Amino acid sequence: MIIVMKHGSTQENVDKIVEVLKAHGLGANLSTGAQATIIGVLGDKSRLADANLELMDGVEKCVPIMHSYKLASREMCPDGRVAEVGGQRIGGKQLVLMAGPCAVESEEQILEAAQGVKAAGATFLRGGAYKPRTSPYAFQGMEDEGFKLLRKAADATGLKVVSEVISHDQIDTAAKYCDMFQVGARNMQNFRLLREIGRSKVPVLLKRGIASTIEEWLDAAEYIMSEGNYNVVLCERGIRTFETATRNTLDVSAVPVVKERSSLPIIIDPSHAAGKSRYIESLSLAGIAAGADGLIIEVHPEPKVAMSDAAQQLTIPEYQALVKKVGAVAAAVGRELPC
Amino acid sequence: MIIVMKHGSTQENVDKIVEVLKAHGLGANLSTGAQATIIGVLGDKSRLADANLELMDGVEKCVPIMHSYKLASREMCPDGRVAEVGGQRIGGKQLVLMAGPCAVESEEQILEAAQGVKAAGATFLRGGAYKPRTSPYAFQGMEDEGFKLLRKAADATGLKVVSEVISHDQIDTAAKYCDMFQVGARNMQNFRLLREIGRSKVPVLLKRGIASTIEEWLDAAEYIMSEGNYNVVLCERGIRTFETATRNTLDVSAVPVVKERSSLPIIIDPSHAAGKSRYIESLSLAGIAAGADGLIIEVHPEPKVAMSDAAQQLTIPEYQALVKKVGAVAAAVGRELPC
Amino acid sequence: MIIVMKHGSTQENVDKIVEVLKAHGLGANLSTGAQATIIGVLGDKSRLADANLELMDGVEKCVPIMHSYKLASREMCPDGRVAEVGGQRIGGKQLVLMAGPCAVESEEQILEAAQGVKAAGATFLRGGAYKPRTSPYAFQGMEDEGFKLLRKAADATGLKVVSEVISHDQIDTAAKYCDMFQVGARNMQNFRLLREIGRSKVPVLLKRGIASTIEEWLDAAEYIMSEGNYNVVLCERGIRTFETATRNTLDVSAVPVVKERSSLPIIIDPSHAAGKSRYIESLSLAGIAAGADGLIIEVHPEPKVAMSDAAQQLTIPEYQALVKKVGAVAAAVGRELPC
Amino acid sequence: MIIVMKHGSTQENVDKIVEVLKAHGLGANLSTGAQATIIGVLGDKSRLADANLELMDGVEKCVPIMHSYKLASREMCPDGRVAEVGGQRIGGKQLVLMAGPCAVESEEQILEAAQGVKAAGATFLRGGAYKPRTSPYAFQGMEDEGFKLLRKAADATGLKVVSEVISHDQIDTAAKYCDMFQVGARNMQNFRLLREIGRSKVPVLLKRGIASTIEEWLDAAEYIMSEGNYNVVLCERGIRTFETATRNTLDVSAVPVVKERSSLPIIIDPSHAAGKSRYIESLSLAGIAAGADGLIIEVHPEPKVAMSDAAQQLTIPEYQALVKKVGAVAAAVGRELPC
Repeated sequence: MIIVMKHGSTQENVDKIVEVLKAHGLGANLSTGAQATIIGVLGDKSRLADANLELMDGVEKCVPIMHSYKLASREMCPDGRVAEVGGQRIGGKQLVLMAGPCAVESEEQILEAAQGVKAAGATFLRGGAYKPRTSPYAFQGMEDEGFKLLRKAADATGLKVVSEVISHDQIDTAAKYCDMFQVGARNMQNFRLLREIGRSKVPVLLKRGIASTIEEWLDAAEYIMSEGNYNVVLCERGIRTFETATRNTLDVSAVPVVKERSSLPIIIDPSHAAGKSRYIESLSLAGIAAGADGLIIEVHPEPKVAMSDAAQQLTIPEYQALVKKVGAVAAAVGRELPC
Repeated sequence: MIIVMKHGSTQENVDKIVEVLKAHGLGANLSTGAQATIIGVLGDKSRLADANLELMDGVEKCVPIMHSYKLASREMCPDGRVAEVGGQRIGGKQLVLMAGPCAVESEEQILEAAQGVKAAGATFLRGGAYKPRTSPYAFQGMEDEGFKLLRKAADATGLKVVSEVISHDQIDTAAKYCDMFQVGARNMQNFRLLREIGRSKVPVLLKRGIASTIEEWLDAAEYIMSEGNYNVVLCERGIRTFETATRNTLDVSAVPVVKERSSLPIIIDPSHAAGKSRYIESLSLAGIAAGADGLIIEVHPEPKVAMSDAAQQLTIPEYQALVKKVGAVAAAVGRELPC
Repeated sequence: MIIVMKHGSTQENVDKIVEVLKAHGLGANLSTGAQATIIGVLGDKSRLADANLELMDGVEKCVPIMHSYKLASREMCPDGRVAEVGGQRIGGKQLVLMAGPCAVESEEQILEAAQGVKAAGATFLRGGAYKPRTSPYAFQGMEDEGFKLLRKAADATGLKVVSEVISHDQIDTAAKYCDMFQVGARNMQNFRLLREIGRSKVPVLLKRGIASTIEEWLDAAEYIMSEGNYNVVLCERGIRTFETATRNTLDVSAVPVVKERSSLPIIIDPSHAAGKSRYIESLSLAGIAAGADGLIIEVHPEPKVAMSDAAQQLTIPEYQALVKKVGAVAAAVGRELPC
Repeated sequence: MIIVMKHGSTQENVDKIVEVLKAHGLGANLSTGAQATIIGVLGDKSRLADANLELMDGVEKCVPIMHSYKLASREMCPDGRVAEVGGQRIGGKQLVLMAGPCAVESEEQILEAAQGVKAAGATFLRGGAYKPRTSPYAFQGMEDEGFKLLRKAADATGLKVVSEVISHDQIDTAAKYCDMFQVGARNMQNFRLLREIGRSKVPVLLKRGIASTIEEWLDAAEYIMSEGNYNVVLCERGIRTFETATRNTLDVSAVPVVKERSSLPIIIDPSHAAGKSRYIESLSLAGIAAGADGLIIEVHPEPKVAMSDAAQQLTIPEYQALVKKVGAVAAAVGRELPC
């Protein structure tokens, strides 16, 4: 951390700060410029948790230099981490393809979706059993019954199950049916949920909050990892901006930034980013070209009758056509489809 | 809802939609213009939950006309609602003043804070027992012990307690110590928490999510109210924008917008909006002048040693001076301090 | 400026940087911590304009410490500047009240507006002669004829004229009719226009760009001041965010931030921030309570027939009622209406 | 346009509006629902420019249905437009590759850059002669001398020249040296400049404003096209959001949205979006995969000594390596490099 002193601060101000640093077992490095005096803090800044230097007399501001996450950082694992989910690996040369409807609606619907996306090359079946909805009057999902149907459809087709948990008290039940938990955008900073999922050791897909910075997202991953669960996969699903042409704005730059700062795999959710099925192809190909490790896409046997997010779900033939194009772009950037 | 047809859509497309509307017990009103055909949907659109008109052939887009919240709307209670918290009323001519430290740190600290803010004119004591923090390595609060100390300090000084609950399984315990629950910005769309607080019937201070629209905020209030708890007070605490001079951007316009669309009282949290104690006075006075029903402000006996959010907490003398100025502005807009 | 070295950078990397600094006549102060080496740059960093330290081997990032504006800074004029416009002072105890229609539409309209706002207590008449419009097909203003009508109406009522110039080649003509130029939000970084207005020495009202940071805004003011024109008044008019309930989001925090960082007066434009006339009262009172030096408000004799921005213009009686309330809040914060 | 009436509006309110519409030669289609009455406006809404329906009694809001641009719309040219710049075509199967330094700094620098990017496969040389800079104290470019050096280097290597004009009075001079003008992000709504470039008939690269919606961008293109200049190419260069990991946030979704709404070609500027050279590859490949018609990239013979934007410029070997990868992704999506 660097402490920038105010124009006009006194030697006494500086001495006082150095004294506080010493009291916390930290060193100080003074840099007295023509325009400002700067104090570099030497040592482990976490010792300063209860010393609020920004409030001391003469201090202009404190500039953090290091990020607060450790296990999630690239430094801790320079070669990158590969998540393992029931024998499937996420983060290697092979892309991961997750697909399925927004919500589980019936046994027939989820089975038909599973068969369709499996045939297209997907290896994970997605489908919401618990649906967090903006309005209390909207369809909230089939709940536990949805988990069961997902499992059944996945087993029938040889897919893995990824599904959202929205509260920590669902973890035990959900763990019986899911291979991987999803933490939704609205819960990215539900720290109680993050910690309990960390303790469960179930692999997790961590979506980025709708207005979360990449740093906050990696701090959220750190909550899970600090409980001993390293099977974390990040999912960029669009951020909130002033632009309304798309439901959210896909931050495709998050791919190279995450690859640089973190060891965790990252996939793209073009469905929630776009909000309209006709933009999904462009965003999927962009994500893979940028270096993402896979895609999670909403696919429904009959989007027109879907009970939620209808406008952004692909039909099965559309998904099959998309996967072919994804394969071509993957090959162009040295990646390959799952086999 | 209005359905706008694509340029080039056919009569057959339109007929199909009208048919679907009829099948849902809804009427249609056609408006065939030179540039576009528009279909007005007549009746209760909630019946359309499983008909995804946007995906039907020939449809350009669907434009919602009505908002999705009802109990929280102004229409349902044109004179406005007044929340009742242990005999205190929020939303009438008298402002409510909530104050106290960011976090409860010790018995002495919270008692000193309580005495100071009481003397200044506050009627509610705030203080975090459970602190949601971006990093897992930061101070997370005194937890249940914090609730107890809050209650003790409040009882000793005649204040009401408002404190954050971060998970639905804390509600029973928290209800023993708190007069009012706070739902934090990160949990504004933790729907499980909202519903359970609704069922608890404990009055609630609902903070706006960091990137939530006013409509989403009112939908979140609707979650609580739809469970029978009408003692909801909204709290504007700044939104996330591109500007970094302040921690968040106080959306002072939310005050008149909420007053127009909703019957709920709204207060201002200048501390989290500003992030720096030296801007709090300006934002407090602005909020009251705009028509807010009160203020919640972070006050600490000794901010320099605070264990969290040190830079944004006022000292007790600063708070006392502020309340005087608030009183002057309140009088100028026909409001008054609590007595 | 501070240079943060990468984890793993070598002594050689550091030596190379120190050498480059010396070559530019600058000193270096090394701070070698457990986690990072930091180099404080001593001296006038503007000498580094052509040395791109961020690209040198081993450099993680460069952190600027000082802002780039000087004349606009608080440090240069700690007591604050008062702009002088034809005998009127902006920035002292008295507020400035600017008002008038969005656009000049006819001699009768502008005269009626001038008489109405003058009677209410305004001292400046506003009115667009040149209107920058999003679409080329929208009304673009009466142009030079508009300036003449403004002048005539102002002279008839004893008001000063403030009006927008949108291109540097209008300055000579506009200077004949205007007491103060307005630079609109879209032109805040039209540097050619800023420089020429600086040279013209005509007082200027500089609106904040729709997505400009406060730092960029002060840099824009610096463009004008660096040409010798110190009569600059800033105008906060709302920034672009994700919220759509208002046309823009009034950043009321900009008032205390500007007062801290800059010596320039700042006024509020609630009309463009709100976009709806029914929110203007709240925002006006909020701005004055926050410490702004005045208001610029759109007032039209008959808003329903206005040729632009109809929804956000007040009627003359509405404006008169508003000024009374502004006076009460002004008194509460130690300010007063112009006499 | 659709007019939504307030809950509680009267038949008289509606009659009055219908009357106003008739007075403007427009029809009305009433849709009386259980919750709201809606009036569809039939005919050319531009006739309503001076009727401010939103202010009429009983009106809740007006919802525009059609966009305001016509020449730039997809409807006007369903097969898409191909821009012609001195024999080069932009918008067909072949991508366009524009490259060169941020700023022209010397004859040697621009010639070396030209040779390097030409060898890599670029067909356009970029380079700023006039540089709009945030601070008045930063390097402002070589101005007209820069144009001359660009032309010379382009002629020596067989490249076309694209360079920014920042004021309409530079057009005549710039036209002698440039094959294509660039309108920078800060000038996207400098309507005077847009109109004059429209009249000049010189092909133009129109960058998106830093916080402009896609609709506003297409309206800006319409300004140019409405003067008879149809050789407009759009350039997405990142928008301003809350995320600070990159200089701006590349809105890659703008590619499919623009392709759907507009007939104009669109290219990507990954350099300004990323702000860091190490992210440029990811963003370039993402842009091409998404369907963009080309790339404009900052390339400098020696970025470390560049006089502006050093951190985001590629070296010539980096650019050459990038073009190879771009070629592979282009082939995967059915496009090809220029030959």
